[in-house]
Amino acid sequence: MSGPDHDEDYGRLIVQGADRPGIVATVSGVLTEQGANIVSLDQSSSDPSGGRFFQRTVFHLADLPTRAAGLNAALEARLGEQLGLEFRLVEARRRKRVAILVSRADHCLLDLLWRQRRDEVHMTVPMVVSNHPDLGDDVRGFDIPFFHVPVAKEDKSAAEKEQLNLLKGNVDLVVLARYMQILSGDFLAEVGAPVINIHHSFLPAFIGAGPYQRAKERGVKLVGATAHYVTEDLDEGPIIEQDVIRVSHRDSVADLQRKGADVERLVLSRAVAWHCDDRVVRDGATTVVF
Amino acid sequence: MSGPDHDEDYGRLIVQGADRPGIVATVSGVLTEQGANIVSLDQSSSDPSGGRFFQRTVFHLADLPTRAAGLNAALEARLGEQLGLEFRLVEARRRKRVAILVSRADHCLLDLLWRQRRDEVHMTVPMVVSNHPDLGDDVRGFDIPFFHVPVAKEDKSAAEKEQLNLLKGNVDLVVLARYMQILSGDFLAEVGAPVINIHHSFLPAFIGAGPYQRAKERGVKLVGATAHYVTEDLDEGPIIEQDVIRVSHRDSVADLQRKGADVERLVLSRAVAWHCDDRVVRDGATTVVF
Amino acid sequence: MSGPDHDEDYGRLIVQGADRPGIVATVSGVLTEQGANIVSLDQSSSDPSGGRFFQRTVFHLADLPTRAAGLNAALEARLGEQLGLEFRLVEARRRKRVAILVSRADHCLLDLLWRQRRDEVHMTVPMVVSNHPDLGDDVRGFDIPFFHVPVAKEDKSAAEKEQLNLLKGNVDLVVLARYMQILSGDFLAEVGAPVINIHHSFLPAFIGAGPYQRAKERGVKLVGATAHYVTEDLDEGPIIEQDVIRVSHRDSVADLQRKGADVERLVLSRAVAWHCDDRVVRDGATTVVF
Amino acid sequence: MSGPDHDEDYGRLIVQGADRPGIVATVSGVLTEQGANIVSLDQSSSDPSGGRFFQRTVFHLADLPTRAAGLNAALEARLGEQLGLEFRLVEARRRKRVAILVSRADHCLLDLLWRQRRDEVHMTVPMVVSNHPDLGDDVRGFDIPFFHVPVAKEDKSAAEKEQLNLLKGNVDLVVLARYMQILSGDFLAEVGAPVINIHHSFLPAFIGAGPYQRAKERGVKLVGATAHYVTEDLDEGPIIEQDVIRVSHRDSVADLQRKGADVERLVLSRAVAWHCDDRVVRDGATTVVF
Repeated sequence: MSGPDHDEDYGRLIVQGADRPGIVATVSGVLTEQGANIVSLDQSSSDPSGGRFFQRTVFHLADLPTRAAGLNAALEARLGEQLGLEFRLVEARRRKRVAILVSRADHCLLDLLWRQRRDEVHMTVPMVVSNHPDLGDDVRGFDIPFFHVPVAKEDKSAAEKEQLNLLKGNVDLVVLARYMQILSGDFLAEVGAPVINIHHSFLPAFIGAGPYQRAKERGVKLVGATAHYVTEDLDEGPIIEQDVIRVSHRDSVADLQRKGADVERLVLSRAVAWHCDDRVVRDGATTVVF
Repeated sequence: MSGPDHDEDYGRLIVQGADRPGIVATVSGVLTEQGANIVSLDQSSSDPSGGRFFQRTVFHLADLPTRAAGLNAALEARLGEQLGLEFRLVEARRRKRVAILVSRADHCLLDLLWRQRRDEVHMTVPMVVSNHPDLGDDVRGFDIPFFHVPVAKEDKSAAEKEQLNLLKGNVDLVVLARYMQILSGDFLAEVGAPVINIHHSFLPAFIGAGPYQRAKERGVKLVGATAHYVTEDLDEGPIIEQDVIRVSHRDSVADLQRKGADVERLVLSRAVAWHCDDRVVRDGATTVVF
Repeated sequence: MSGPDHDEDYGRLIVQGADRPGIVATVSGVLTEQGANIVSLDQSSSDPSGGRFFQRTVFHLADLPTRAAGLNAALEARLGEQLGLEFRLVEARRRKRVAILVSRADHCLLDLLWRQRRDEVHMTVPMVVSNHPDLGDDVRGFDIPFFHVPVAKEDKSAAEKEQLNLLKGNVDLVVLARYMQILSGDFLAEVGAPVINIHHSFLPAFIGAGPYQRAKERGVKLVGATAHYVTEDLDEGPIIEQDVIRVSHRDSVADLQRKGADVERLVLSRAVAWHCDDRVVRDGATTVVF
Repeated sequence: MSGPDHDEDYGRLIVQGADRPGIVATVSGVLTEQGANIVSLDQSSSDPSGGRFFQRTVFHLADLPTRAAGLNAALEARLGEQLGLEFRLVEARRRKRVAILVSRADHCLLDLLWRQRRDEVHMTVPMVVSNHPDLGDDVRGFDIPFFHVPVAKEDKSAAEKEQLNLLKGNVDLVVLARYMQILSGDFLAEVGAPVINIHHSFLPAFIGAGPYQRAKERGVKLVGATAHYVTEDLDEGPIIEQDVIRVSHRDSVADLQRKGADVERLVLSRAVAWHCDDRVVRDGATTVVF
């Protein structure tokens, strides 16, 4: 997986804020003054006048690690202070550290671990955490630590505390790969990293539990899956990616689950890969995906 | 559009009822005894034991119009009385009479009329009824009568009465091709024909008004359309067909409407064509589509 | 269809040439110096080092019609002379003049004319030319001139001469909407406008005549359509857009044609709409589609 | 994976031959006389008159293992001798024995092994054979024997002889899961089992080597994969399943390979699952997929 999205001396600049004339030219100008060469640039505006502005720029700058601080200072002066924009500067070579939380279903987990091994997702996986012991052998077969943290039905706080001990400071992203427990608002506030979930329906259809059973009862002709950032509102977080597959009256609930599982793993893997490449920017209740 | 689904001396037999051993053999036996040759046969069972059974059989029987009564009597004796099954015998050559109700948007209407002219849907269109005069010239250009029946906001009953006068006894199917008025339960009970609607979302997501606006606000990555039979429960009728198209954060609400319109017309046209070929059988809140 | 792609005082700048550092910054700089505000920018490089570079920039410049000449001169100096790049400056409000050539099949033609009437494609259609008289009434129903130019089997040169008389200088694009005659190299050289064709297969599968018949014989499980620029090499021109639809062993050749026709009209309409918005740039035997 | 396709006392009957009136009724009659209850029935005719006929019937017959011989004799008398049809009787509970041949790419292999472990494909995998040692650990992690059979460039006959020793009599199906060697006609004649291959293009586009490279050069907007039975004519065997995924000018050849790999594994797994359920019947150069 080589190229400007992952190689040394390539950087990414994510800019967002209130739209106004001249942002693209200013960003290009600062980068060029600092000796960087723009390799690709993508931007989006929620409204040509008065909207929110988002830009993802990939550039090459020789000796980036030592020059990043200077570039950052120049950007702070011109984008931050003069234009009031937020920005993030990321070195492309740096892999995000991704923890995976999982219950018993293996399809999303295996797809992520296997893509990580093939280097299709620019991440490291420092740990997999599960409320069941079932998938330990599979995970350790990839030389990845597996931690079993049982969750008590009555009180999840002890489990969440243990999970936070494992995760805090150690990861840049938490992925719920069919993790069948609801995380508390406290957990989300404390974990210090964004959390991506895969929901096994085409949201906002079939929010909540048992979506395939309800899809069968409603007689839909397509089932789908949705990867989204987790917020306190269940299944209401900003959507990153969705896809669907055709089904028919012949398919049982088990058939829907089987067909849906193929969509779930593809949708989640795409969402995680995009997040790791900083292609996803939150815009309120929605996302911009570059 | 020739072939066993539409030619002379071909028939269709739709059978449904409680599943039990021997139905397929009995149906095949009766048809063969009566001199019919089975051309195709499709069946579905909601559950191998104790479920509901559905079968669509296409057969050839020389001189079908004069022999249909005898075949019907034999089926009544063997399927109706002995097995307690419902059945419908249809001559394939007979086109369904389809009335189209429409408001101002032309895309679903024109798609149906084009396909009818091209003989892609086995129907005649004896009339188009609209609560607006806008599409009269387009409809009459196809040599199809257009009736303008305005609908008063306060009281729709006068309009529904006029619509019923036009429709009752004259049509086998009513299609709502983006007709933006809700039909009353009384209308549905009296019209004497099934009613198919196209809803501009992937149901059950975005039930009700303004689905594209709400899709934009929720940030979905696909928009869709759903063709369903109309029941008294708004947007809850049995789904016949659905499809989706990919969208992104770049798409405005107007873009979603434009992209969605292409899905709407395809989905509605497929649903109407299948209904006209008796491929759709209702199964409670869902459908079997052969 | 309002917005930066079609409104007054919006412009598009298409830049292409050998890639080198600093192009994005230079383009942004010139536009900003001239008082233009960049609304969106998309660029592509065939290779980060030594490849070909393409950029499409949309900008707003108050009073664009009177200031276009000055902007053009500035771009010529900085992009043309200093960087050796080709560029094209287009006013967004200007509709492309598109002639449609057609034979007997109506589906692609009607889809284009209807989208033009709905203002979904930013074009005018000054004429439709056909080698058959069949579709004259349909075309004139849209208030568009229809010219019948029969083509002799033995010698097409007289017909091509008549077509050139109609087209030369009057159109910016020629669309072959299922026009079943092969155009000569001389015609292509003289007509003075790009030509887009819809081929009724997923190229490069089933190049040449009878693709649906051959698809049936080969037993493919999907059929497709391809919109491409026409070159002297039959069905080898740069591909703009493709799509497919699922088929099965049950589908006859006529069924494939019917299902394929839905793909053909969508694919061609998308390709024409993108061309009219200058989103398609040729890159040798391929295209960049922004 | 329970249900009529895999449970005890369920059977499948595959019938094929020249079409003629009464086949469906005869098959239904024989099964009913023998005490079997038809659970589902699917049939296809290449032409209503004078075509080829195919039927797949699933039935329940108590104590099937002991009664299969009697049923077979009855079918032989009525279908074989009287109607000149070929038929195959299969017990649903019996898993097909599937050998997988693979080279270095792991994606199709792992997808099949995961699904086998999850019981999504009704098969056993008695062995994986590879011309490279790379994937041995992965395979043995599933408790499946892995045999490394190197193939000499100059002369493959020694390797094929060793493969035949492993395979003959031990397997019901051979799957080439990105096995990058061409099998000889002698091998195919001797192996005594059908062979399914996954080709990494949407056939008949890009027959032969390097399809992704050639797809990039041709500038296609979709890439695909094709699962087909292997015949002596390279990439010309009957197609079982195909699918595609959207790509753009931004995708490098490596990107096409990565995106295509997801299609390859889905298409191959579907084809193998369908074959194992006897849903695929060859019809000359094509297939019927029930």
